[in-house]
Amino acid sequence: MSDFGALANLHRDALFQDAVPFWEDHSVDWKNGGYFTCLDRRGRVFDTDKFVWLQARQVWTFSMLYNRSDRNDAWLAIARSGADFLSQYGMDDDGNWYFSLDRTGRPLVQPYNIFADCFAAMAFSQYALASGDEQAKEIALHSYRNVLRRRENPKGKYSKIVPGVRTLRSLALPMILANLTSELGWLLPADKVEETLATCLSQIMTLFLDPGRNLLFEHVSPDGSHPDCFDGRLINPGHGIEAMWFVIDIARRRDDRKTIDRAIDVVLSTLEFGWDPEHGGIFYFLDSEGKPPQQLEWDQKLWWVHLEALVALAMGLALTGREACWEWYQKVHDYAWPRFADPEYGEWFGYLNRRGEVLLDLKGGKWKGCFHVPRALYLCYGLFDGLDESKKAAP
Amino acid sequence: MSDFGALANLHRDALFQDAVPFWEDHSVDWKNGGYFTCLDRRGRVFDTDKFVWLQARQVWTFSMLYNRSDRNDAWLAIARSGADFLSQYGMDDDGNWYFSLDRTGRPLVQPYNIFADCFAAMAFSQYALASGDEQAKEIALHSYRNVLRRRENPKGKYSKIVPGVRTLRSLALPMILANLTSELGWLLPADKVEETLATCLSQIMTLFLDPGRNLLFEHVSPDGSHPDCFDGRLINPGHGIEAMWFVIDIARRRDDRKTIDRAIDVVLSTLEFGWDPEHGGIFYFLDSEGKPPQQLEWDQKLWWVHLEALVALAMGLALTGREACWEWYQKVHDYAWPRFADPEYGEWFGYLNRRGEVLLDLKGGKWKGCFHVPRALYLCYGLFDGLDESKKAAP
Repeated sequence: MSDFGALANLHRDALFQDAVPFWEDHSVDWKNGGYFTCLDRRGRVFDTDKFVWLQARQVWTFSMLYNRSDRNDAWLAIARSGADFLSQYGMDDDGNWYFSLDRTGRPLVQPYNIFADCFAAMAFSQYALASGDEQAKEIALHSYRNVLRRRENPKGKYSKIVPGVRTLRSLALPMILANLTSELGWLLPADKVEETLATCLSQIMTLFLDPGRNLLFEHVSPDGSHPDCFDGRLINPGHGIEAMWFVIDIARRRDDRKTIDRAIDVVLSTLEFGWDPEHGGIFYFLDSEGKPPQQLEWDQKLWWVHLEALVALAMGLALTGREACWEWYQKVHDYAWPRFADPEYGEWFGYLNRRGEVLLDLKGGKWKGCFHVPRALYLCYGLFDGLDESKKAAP
Repeated sequence: MSDFGALANLHRDALFQDAVPFWEDHSVDWKNGGYFTCLDRRGRVFDTDKFVWLQARQVWTFSMLYNRSDRNDAWLAIARSGADFLSQYGMDDDGNWYFSLDRTGRPLVQPYNIFADCFAAMAFSQYALASGDEQAKEIALHSYRNVLRRRENPKGKYSKIVPGVRTLRSLALPMILANLTSELGWLLPADKVEETLATCLSQIMTLFLDPGRNLLFEHVSPDGSHPDCFDGRLINPGHGIEAMWFVIDIARRRDDRKTIDRAIDVVLSTLEFGWDPEHGGIFYFLDSEGKPPQQLEWDQKLWWVHLEALVALAMGLALTGREACWEWYQKVHDYAWPRFADPEYGEWFGYLNRRGEVLLDLKGGKWKGCFHVPRALYLCYGLFDGLDESKKAAP
């Protein structure tokens, strides 16, 4: 029997004694509001720009912990610091979310990216739950409507694609919309939630999932076929696996065992495809035909890819007990923890080279903030706690 | 005494018996016109999209070889294939150059990038010289005017920067405009050429060159200061070195010894700064303050970076005989040739990892085409041929 209790404790301690204190101690800009996310190995700020994705994700994380784990006022204050900063400076006059701001809130990069609206909607929804703030609720709904409005043309005037020649759809959209709609479920009409989730799940599992290979493609033609070009051949294993645990989580709530099993199959085949046979770890990008990918960083090992895999596998194990989930869980765990986690200074490194050596000596940057590590630790803690037989046996 | 004759022969043979035949044999799309540039190690086409930068650069290369080396009709025919394809399909209705086309010429990516216009101007200028084609001359001038018109706002409506908050100027613009204006000198009024070159040189050597560090910064404030942000701290050693040989080449024709010496100093200090002390080779991106760069590919070793360094050092050696140029030349040569050159299948690999191992098993892709390798081989051949004492001694 595996010691799931020990695994639960490992994740709980890493969350509450390592990751959360790291962000509490180093990231909060009490002077200007919001968070510094560019933190070196020790947590020292090395750049002060504020990226809206990461501001919003940190609001979400501290609000989520407050809502689901412990109504700790310090966490709510940290969430409020980011929420106030974002609501004051984060939107342009039309209510679209900028991509980045300077430390004082002056906008730097325009709202070219729909995912800023996605993460803002998630953030303000959790924060509204935590704070009871009515304005936060409105911002969450407003940002969610932005996403719906922009989803057919997410980049708007910033899109560089010539229309009508090679139309591609991106996995990122239904994937994020599924997750977002689940998050905002408490604010939306139940039938709308069900309808949107059903559409997203169907798109992910039929349009983007290639049934022959059991792999999710990042971009497909509107009919689901694969144009023979860089984008059309692109596999992002971490993204595919993350999409699958979103699907599993939604299917679980509908008690849809068939979809759960199918999604777990895809997680496993993505790991088979994406695992580096030479040095271990999951590649960042691969070409479905084995051609050279255009992404120079293709062979790197990223923190979030491995965390999403651990979440998906722990979920698969908890829901089905499938042996393959447990085997892969241990393989990814044994690769990731000794290389990414930094017990000396806290949190996880973000970027390793192919050999698993630290590529960038940082704990946060333009794309890594207070999100994937605490979210995955929180989810794995809960999943292993639920699997812990010793607890079940107790009265 | 060094055997410069042998070095001249090495570069001549690599150019005419290896690099040029590689592109002649594998890249020309005689059916649709233009060139395939996504070629695997053996030269097999792995993707058929046509990137305007690379189409134009190949037109330039074959026209340049025809103009300067040998009036070989086969080369002119290859240049014509690309020039015809580009003039037929490459521009939108306003005469701006698309970024990419499919194999048959249908546009894929909009004209968001001023460098497509730059490389088109260079291509059609060389091709006009080679072919005597009047329309080519017009396209060259038209594209050059596009560059001048767009240079204050190169990305136009595709720019994501919020105006007025953190204004940055980019080294790439004066650098490419200097090179381009030299190229088009035969088509432009002499006083305009001198005026533009003087402005570009002054911008490069005062605004972008940090005198304390003797390094070129990729982006600076309009007053030349360095904002403390990712872009403001960015050093691209290969780009800085390439800019310096553009400057040396222009200063040489004006017999401006002071600027030549200054530019060589910068080449040498950039190499000191950019050389990987652990594994050898020149880093792709570095942060001026030693902070983590945002580019995940920062530690990779790229073919063009090393070729530009070899050209700059050979030029410095030929023009000044400085010992440091020769020492660095040998160091870069001894690093680059055994790792990048592929005598088995021809041409050079483009992308090595930090350890100097092949990262992408290709000879051409979305950004690597028929340009840097033949241009550097041609220039080094000429420079070492000029240094060859045995020839000088001959009657």
